[in-house]
Amino acid sequence: MLKVPEHQVAGHIAKDGRLGPLVDDQGRFFKPLQGDARGENEAKFYESFSSNKNVPDHIHGYFPVYHGVQLVEASDGSGKLPHMVLEDVVSGYVKPSVMDVKIGSRTWYPDVSEEYFNKCIKKDRATTTVSLGFRVSGLKIFDRQESRFWRPDKRVVLAYKADGARTALRKFVSSNSVADSIPDCAFASEVYGGSNGILAQLLGLKAWFETQTLYHFNSCSILMVYENESGDDAPRARVKLVDFAHVLDGNGVIDHNFFGGLCSFIKFIQDILESSENCCENGH
Amino acid sequence: MLKVPEHQVAGHIAKDGRLGPLVDDQGRFFKPLQGDARGENEAKFYESFSSNKNVPDHIHGYFPVYHGVQLVEASDGSGKLPHMVLEDVVSGYVKPSVMDVKIGSRTWYPDVSEEYFNKCIKKDRATTTVSLGFRVSGLKIFDRQESRFWRPDKRVVLAYKADGARTALRKFVSSNSVADSIPDCAFASEVYGGSNGILAQLLGLKAWFETQTLYHFNSCSILMVYENESGDDAPRARVKLVDFAHVLDGNGVIDHNFFGGLCSFIKFIQDILESSENCCENGH
Repeated sequence: MLKVPEHQVAGHIAKDGRLGPLVDDQGRFFKPLQGDARGENEAKFYESFSSNKNVPDHIHGYFPVYHGVQLVEASDGSGKLPHMVLEDVVSGYVKPSVMDVKIGSRTWYPDVSEEYFNKCIKKDRATTTVSLGFRVSGLKIFDRQESRFWRPDKRVVLAYKADGARTALRKFVSSNSVADSIPDCAFASEVYGGSNGILAQLLGLKAWFETQTLYHFNSCSILMVYENESGDDAPRARVKLVDFAHVLDGNGVIDHNFFGGLCSFIKFIQDILESSENCCENGH
Repeated sequence: MLKVPEHQVAGHIAKDGRLGPLVDDQGRFFKPLQGDARGENEAKFYESFSSNKNVPDHIHGYFPVYHGVQLVEASDGSGKLPHMVLEDVVSGYVKPSVMDVKIGSRTWYPDVSEEYFNKCIKKDRATTTVSLGFRVSGLKIFDRQESRFWRPDKRVVLAYKADGARTALRKFVSSNSVADSIPDCAFASEVYGGSNGILAQLLGLKAWFETQTLYHFNSCSILMVYENESGDDAPRARVKLVDFAHVLDGNGVIDHNFFGGLCSFIKFIQDILESSENCCENGH
């Protein structure tokens, strides 16, 4: 009944007998509680967040719906283990293009162990986390020309510099083959732009982060999903926040780390939108 | 003719025969170019910035006016050395209260030496830089009750946690003695609030940082100045950016590090303003 998610682009993957998330055919995503404090912390966050009256209704829409914790047969054959039961964000899409962008100019935070700090800061400096305030963690793009998914290797994605991240964000909304050296950004205006597009959703999120001091979303990702295979239908572009194993109480301070990175990411999306508009106007 | 500045609260101080900035009685501030790349970099920034047509006019007002580099008798007796000639931000104030707040959740940046990185990150973690996105670097407050300046020791200031930073920002705008345990925030509405107050100025700066990709202001400070000794006169609250030894080209990316820290700092000021307004309304 449960199976390995088809469209997961980052995080632990449940294949080759390893422990990872599973999905059912009812649109639910089962994420195993890891043995250490991280799983506990993420479940605690979902419990707190889903019942938090200080979070505006429309902000809840940026988060996967939480259905509690259930004992479920684990993907690694180790028997029944507690899993968080969440909304499967890509359920209902046939050929979704998906990108996972980890937000923030650091993934560590005050009071972590030296071991964790060292591991994080090394990766933060090696990727665009420090320089851009975000890093692309994974992506898959449905290539209409080739009628198949393109999914770059994790090591390639994590080696992106600013240009690599920008190109990935352009390819993500292009109709020509990902093998083409110049992405045409043909879907930019309908996926990134428009009143329900990615940019509008990011700006809604930004407005909340400007003043919210409830949570600090350390090492959390924005998942962008849309579909370009649905013919004349809308691309159903969607922004969701995922991965809350390192969320902490805000204690009256805004989440300046997430906020700064989010605004930097928004600028990248705006730049692509603007250049694609100019491009069309000029007939290129 | 040149003398040691009376109201400098952070940075190298020109006393006991050490090298530091000097001021004249014409409102000019002479900052020695340090031997290493930092002085060169700061002078280069001032040259670039002061002639940069892409910087809006009103944004230039947040920066000290730059009058070029001059050879001036150094404060350490080492003869004539090149000094940047800048506007003396506190010139014209009689008893200015001054606070230097270093903005950003890190003071290091990509491609620095390991030595510099290690030095910075240690201090960033030991202060509120990482947790709040800013740290108070120094302050002096004119205590009207005692009719003298209060200036906490640098080590005390750098040891502030979130509560210490908040208390300093409250004391900064209080009429009761700094020795009182509960700052009254009597000047909050006229210094932080109002159409020309600190908050309005910070919001003007924020609007520019939201989209500007010209410069990254690493390890740069906001200087807040006002005067409470001028009787019925306006307190002439002023925000200036200072210390540009580590400014880098933005390369098309917003300064998410400065921006996030600035917004966190703004939230602290807003919180003090709101609580002081509630306090007055309730007659406390």
